Amino acid sequence: MDSPCPIARGVATFGDAWSLLILRDALAGVSRFDDFRRGLGIAPTVLTKRLASLTQEGLLEKVRYQDHPPRDEYRLTEAGRDLLPILFMIAGWSRKHRSEGALVRYLDAVSGRDIEPVAIDRGTGAEIGSRAFRVVVPGSTAEKP
Amino acid sequence: MDSPCPIARGVATFGDAWSLLILRDALAGVSRFDDFRRGLGIAPTVLTKRLASLTQEGLLEKVRYQDHPPRDEYRLTEAGRDLLPILFMIAGWSRKHRSEGALVRYLDAVSGRDIEPVAIDRGTGAEIGSRAFRVVVPGSTAEKP
Repeated sequence: MDSPCPIARGVATFGDAWSLLILRDALAGVSRFDDFRRGLGIAPTVLTKRLASLTQEGLLEKVRYQDHPPRDEYRLTEAGRDLLPILFMIAGWSRKHRSEGALVRYLDAVSGRDIEPVAIDRGTGAEIGSRAFRVVVPGSTAEKP
Repeated sequence: MDSPCPIARGVATFGDAWSLLILRDALAGVSRFDDFRRGLGIAPTVLTKRLASLTQEGLLEKVRYQDHPPRDEYRLTEAGRDLLPILFMIAGWSRKHRSEGALVRYLDAVSGRDIEPVAIDRGTGAEIGSRAFRVVVPGSTAEKP
């Protein structure tokens, strides 16, 4: 987590297949251990580890919803909810490059049309990748006009 | 790869830490085995496997750049280049939620300002997650008005 690269930091936090799929299901409303387990077909030991890690990383929080017997559920934090756009972008990539057969679709509830995710730079409004950019590494003297 | 879920398909293709970091470096211009190895501090056996997998998945292509002795390099395909916005979105997440210490910055080359990645729906122009959406599962009768 000490890397100055923000991509590496994100990858270290949620960049593995199970974590991404757990977060996908959490964003779809799943919150309980057994529901994650059944939905993902994941081994309970692996699920336990991943949920603990995502909780420790602050993407999920463990909340007791019943005292007798004690039962916890996992709720998304703001940091966890902020992964929704990333998962949509991944879905958009697959829709372009892995489109064989039928795919789950995401429709805008009002327009009824397929959501077509695209990443833009809020400052310029331009699509990410459509304009040149410079990388500035902390501590280097690379920031030149 | 048979999942109807486009998120799962993307995750199965590039959703592991090494693959994402290899693709990051490829997008930064790295193309040769030894440069990936040095930059990532990755074990050669692991790098060999990941490069083979990314090549097989069509994100990289192996190109011979020298015949005597034979030397190959790995170049991004269109599918590989299309991961740039996803990596920027991951960076944006980290800038918000993992901002301790100095971070690498990405500046728009013309404006000189930090790129602030945000995912929108091309159809509505709205930020992903800011409007309600419906999930349509293939083969179900869930597509209702």
